[in-house]
Amino acid sequence: MNQVIDLLKNHRSIRKFKPETVSIEKVHAIIEAAGWAATSNFIQAYTVIHVKNKKTRKQIADLAGPQPWVETSPLFLVFCADLKRAQTACLYENKEMVSGYTEQFIISTVDVALAAQNAMIAAESLGLGGVYIGGIRNDPETVCKLLKIPDHVYPTFGMCLGYPDENQEQKPRLPVSMVLNDEYYQESNTDLEKYNAICKAYYQNRSNSSREDTWTHQISVMMTSPARPHMKAFLKKRGFEFK
Amino acid sequence: MNQVIDLLKNHRSIRKFKPETVSIEKVHAIIEAAGWAATSNFIQAYTVIHVKNKKTRKQIADLAGPQPWVETSPLFLVFCADLKRAQTACLYENKEMVSGYTEQFIISTVDVALAAQNAMIAAESLGLGGVYIGGIRNDPETVCKLLKIPDHVYPTFGMCLGYPDENQEQKPRLPVSMVLNDEYYQESNTDLEKYNAICKAYYQNRSNSSREDTWTHQISVMMTSPARPHMKAFLKKRGFEFK
Repeated sequence: MNQVIDLLKNHRSIRKFKPETVSIEKVHAIIEAAGWAATSNFIQAYTVIHVKNKKTRKQIADLAGPQPWVETSPLFLVFCADLKRAQTACLYENKEMVSGYTEQFIISTVDVALAAQNAMIAAESLGLGGVYIGGIRNDPETVCKLLKIPDHVYPTFGMCLGYPDENQEQKPRLPVSMVLNDEYYQESNTDLEKYNAICKAYYQNRSNSSREDTWTHQISVMMTSPARPHMKAFLKKRGFEFK
Repeated sequence: MNQVIDLLKNHRSIRKFKPETVSIEKVHAIIEAAGWAATSNFIQAYTVIHVKNKKTRKQIADLAGPQPWVETSPLFLVFCADLKRAQTACLYENKEMVSGYTEQFIISTVDVALAAQNAMIAAESLGLGGVYIGGIRNDPETVCKLLKIPDHVYPTFGMCLGYPDENQEQKPRLPVSMVLNDEYYQESNTDLEKYNAICKAYYQNRSNSSREDTWTHQISVMMTSPARPHMKAFLKKRGFEFK
């Protein structure tokens, strides 16, 4: 439809990179572009940590999976939902931040995600590719220790970026018919079998690690075991209390 | 730096629209582009409701502020974090979803935000403009009733889109120096006064509703009163239990 939409539709996760480094000018351009995402009431509740230290990256790579590309990618960023800067703004105004609300957790988590998606798109427009690393939430305590992340901030996900050295097939997405509802919520599963078949063919035919799988099977495996059950206690300790 | 980055850096909230409608082809292109965002473990935990009914839109416009553009914008979408489709996938596999984990809340909230940001960028690339409507969380119960949103789904934010009929100045963002940290978290507030001065000038000089304000002042007002304290109970009732 246009170049921007073509770029968006060309997304795939990249985990294998050429050794070429990403210039600091490009890193700044990516982060500046991230900043132009929408933000709830102008709060801009996120911080990005540029992790270069190889030992730190190895430790994060291990706890996140292992996901060795966290160590080997030319660029590794940790995106944090950050309410500490808001706290500083309050202190600057001689006021005390009211913290611990579920809503504040939503605001900061949405803010960091919108900014990160802008960063990913900016990076892809510069010829880079990458992958989000939700796996840092496997052990967020250690990530906080390694990156000296204070209270009111939590590492939401990482992002590996670099010049692609693989040509992954694209994982077929849910059809628009299953995602877009008219007027009110209507679960539309008429296309579910068809989508399962498409995913099955994708998994069978892909060049890297082909396997037997479908969408419903993959999701059912993911969603029938406890999901990172340490997250609540971790977040509570950090000032995100879900009140 | 390139056209895509120029587009990202040109973002501003648009609330005033030309009467021209957005074709259904464009709506589909926007939602298809949304789908190509990254997604945690392929779960694609979001649904978009296209609300056309004027009475419904008026009700949502009122509860969200009022924000009359929710009623008047050519296109109004409600982005929902959706774990119900995952539950359906489990049922399809004769399994029972384990629900209520904080981590699942994060996964679905990040998923819907990444998809929405792709939607916003796709829309802007088509000459549209728009604004996120976090205000639907003022009364999420009513939004759920109006849009028949079931358990395991919550309306995260709305999005108004259309052809811009205003030329808003851009709200100056935090400088990269305050957002990007090297190696570990380091609150860098050396540029805070400077940023306050920039924001002050922006608020003084903008053509619409100029006022006296700074960033720290605005954030301190927002963060010193309880933030939508109903959200926890609402989400709990809906199956998002923060365990």
